[in-house]
Amino acid sequence: MAAEKPVDGRSVRGGVGVPKKVEDKDMSNRNMMNYCPDIKVFDATMRDGGLVNNFGFTDEFVRDLYNANVAAGVDYMEFGYRASKNMFKVSEFGKWKFTDEEDIRAIVGENNTPLKIAVMADAGRCDYKTDILPKKDSVVDVIRVACYIHQIPLAIDMIEDAKAKGYEVTCNLMAVSKVPGEDLDKGIRMIGASPADVLYLVDSFGNFYPEQIAYMSKKYVEAMQGKQAGFHGHNNQQLAFANTIEACRQGVNYLDMTVNGMGRGAGNCFSEQLLNFLKNPKYNALPILDFVQKHMLKLKADGWKWGYDLPYLLTGVMNCHPRSAIKFVGENRTDYVNFAHELTEMD
Amino acid sequence: MAAEKPVDGRSVRGGVGVPKKVEDKDMSNRNMMNYCPDIKVFDATMRDGGLVNNFGFTDEFVRDLYNANVAAGVDYMEFGYRASKNMFKVSEFGKWKFTDEEDIRAIVGENNTPLKIAVMADAGRCDYKTDILPKKDSVVDVIRVACYIHQIPLAIDMIEDAKAKGYEVTCNLMAVSKVPGEDLDKGIRMIGASPADVLYLVDSFGNFYPEQIAYMSKKYVEAMQGKQAGFHGHNNQQLAFANTIEACRQGVNYLDMTVNGMGRGAGNCFSEQLLNFLKNPKYNALPILDFVQKHMLKLKADGWKWGYDLPYLLTGVMNCHPRSAIKFVGENRTDYVNFAHELTEMD
Repeated sequence: MAAEKPVDGRSVRGGVGVPKKVEDKDMSNRNMMNYCPDIKVFDATMRDGGLVNNFGFTDEFVRDLYNANVAAGVDYMEFGYRASKNMFKVSEFGKWKFTDEEDIRAIVGENNTPLKIAVMADAGRCDYKTDILPKKDSVVDVIRVACYIHQIPLAIDMIEDAKAKGYEVTCNLMAVSKVPGEDLDKGIRMIGASPADVLYLVDSFGNFYPEQIAYMSKKYVEAMQGKQAGFHGHNNQQLAFANTIEACRQGVNYLDMTVNGMGRGAGNCFSEQLLNFLKNPKYNALPILDFVQKHMLKLKADGWKWGYDLPYLLTGVMNCHPRSAIKFVGENRTDYVNFAHELTEMD
Repeated sequence: MAAEKPVDGRSVRGGVGVPKKVEDKDMSNRNMMNYCPDIKVFDATMRDGGLVNNFGFTDEFVRDLYNANVAAGVDYMEFGYRASKNMFKVSEFGKWKFTDEEDIRAIVGENNTPLKIAVMADAGRCDYKTDILPKKDSVVDVIRVACYIHQIPLAIDMIEDAKAKGYEVTCNLMAVSKVPGEDLDKGIRMIGASPADVLYLVDSFGNFYPEQIAYMSKKYVEAMQGKQAGFHGHNNQQLAFANTIEACRQGVNYLDMTVNGMGRGAGNCFSEQLLNFLKNPKYNALPILDFVQKHMLKLKADGWKWGYDLPYLLTGVMNCHPRSAIKFVGENRTDYVNFAHELTEMD
C-alpha cells in the first residue's frame, strides 16, 4: 500500500516526500501542505441520497453527476443498491434501488474513465448469488457489502461470492456506535481475515466525535492488516467532515462523501468540502460546484429534505436511529423540547 | 486554575478524578465520560449575531435569551459591542451595538445570577477611557477587547484600563489565519505578559482545520502561562463545533458559542451542540432548544440569513473575509463557479 511518490497530505501519516515514512506512526510528521495518493474519494450521493428521494433521480441528474465526478477526479461512484426484486416491489422505488446492469450502462456505456463504479448489496435484502454477475459481464467495479454486527457471517459469504466473481469488495459495517467494544473487536477481526479489500467505519447515527473516530479508526486500520479502511459519516452533529478528516489522519484511506451532503436525515460529508480539503492535484471541486447549482438546489426546491437540523443533533447525541427525527422534520414540527423528551422515553 | 475536583471531560488534559493529572500532557489520559469544571461556555449570540441583524433584537428576545442562558447554566453572556457614539450614528444601529449600562440593566436588573455579563470593546472603534465605567458602577463583569495583530499595543492599553477599573478582561485577537507565524508568536507573548485574563484564538474567516487548531491552541495556552485561553470559531467549513472541541482538548477553556450558530456569514459554534457535548451536570441544553423554537425560527422566517452555505465554504477555504460571500448570498446568486473564480481574482 505504500506510495511510490511523495506522500501524504494533511491526511495520513508520512513525511515530506519521503516514501519510507508512510508507515511512520508519529502524526506530528504529517505535512499539511502535501497530499497522499493512497486516499480515495467515494461519491455515495445516489445511494445515501437515494434514501431521501426514494431513488427517484432523473437520467439527466445521474448523467451530469457521473460527468461531474469524472471531471472532478473522483475515484469511485456508487449508483445505488442492488436490492432484491423478490423482497422489494420495483414499482415502489426509483430504479437506483436496484441498479440493473442496463440502467447503469445507459449512463456510462463501457465507462472508459478512471472512475470506478460501485453498487451496495445489503445483507439480507439482496439476492447476491444471482443478481451479482461475474465481473466480466458487468460494468460495475466494486461491490459494497453492508451489514450489521450480527450479520457478519452472511456478509463474509457475500464478500467471498463477490471476490470470486472478480470484484473489488468493501464491507460497510453499520451502526457500530451501538455495538459493545468486545463484540466489535471480534467482528472486525473476522472481516479483516476475509477477502474484503476495504472495511468501512460507518457512523450510521452521526453519534461519534473526532476523538472517538480516532480511536475507532486505529482499530479498523489494524484489523485490516495492511488492507484498507474507509469512513462513512453522518452530519447529525455537523461532524461528518471533521470526522472524515480525523479518520484520514489515522490512516483511513477510503472516504465517502455526497454532493451537498445529500443523504438520509442529516446527510453526509459534503463532496465540496472534502475535495477542497484534499490537495491531490487530480481533484477539482469546480465541476461539483456547477452540479450543485444545476441539480441540488432544484431537489431542495422540490421539497426533498436533508441536512443538519436540531432533531438530528438530538438523535445523534443520543445515539438513536434518525427515523424519529426524519418524521419530526417531515411533519414540520418545531417543538424541540418535547422531541428531546420523546427520545429519552424511547430508549 | 487547577481544579480541586475530579476533573476533565473529553475536553482537557487530566486523569479520571485525579486532580493532580490536570497538567498531564498525555492526551490519551483523558476520560470522555467525565467533565472539567475549568471549562466555561460563552454565549456570543447578541454580539456576533448582532452583525447579522444590525443589533436589532427585541427586548423580549434579549430577556428570554438571558433567562435561557441562566437556566442552561451558561457561564458568560455577551450583550453586544460598546461602540463609540462619536464614530457610529446611534440612529443607524440597534442599541446592542452600544450596550448602554441602562439598557443592560433593563434586562438583567442587578443580575443576581451566576451568569457573568460581557461586552466587546473593539480597538479603534470605542471610547474605552470614558465609556467603560469603573466596575463598581457597572453590571458588566467582563470586557472583551477585540483587535487585529497591528493593534496589540492599543489593545494592551485597553486591557490595562479595564483591569484597573476592576473587570475580568479577555483579548480577542482576530483574523490570525492571515498573520505570519513569527509575528503571531510575538503578539501573543505580548498579550500573555499583559494583565489580560484570557486570550482568545479567533478563527474569523473559518479557515482553520482541527489539526491547525490543535497547533494554534497549544501556542495560545503556552503564551498565557497559566492564565486562560479561549476559542471563537466560524462555521464556514462546518468545523466551528469540531474546532471548538479540538481547542478544548488542548486545554483551551473559554468556549464561544451562539444560539443556532447565529453569527456573521456562516455563523459560529451552536450552543445546542456544545451544551450537549459538555458533560458538566450544571449545563442543560433544553432551555436553549426552547429558545430556538420561540425566537430563532422567527428570525430566519423574517429573512435574516446566517449559517453554512457554499460561498462561505469557499471564502473559508481561501482564507478570505466573508464579506463577498455575504453579498453573494444576499443577492440570491447561485453561480458558485463564477464566485470561486472571483475569489481567486481578488487575492
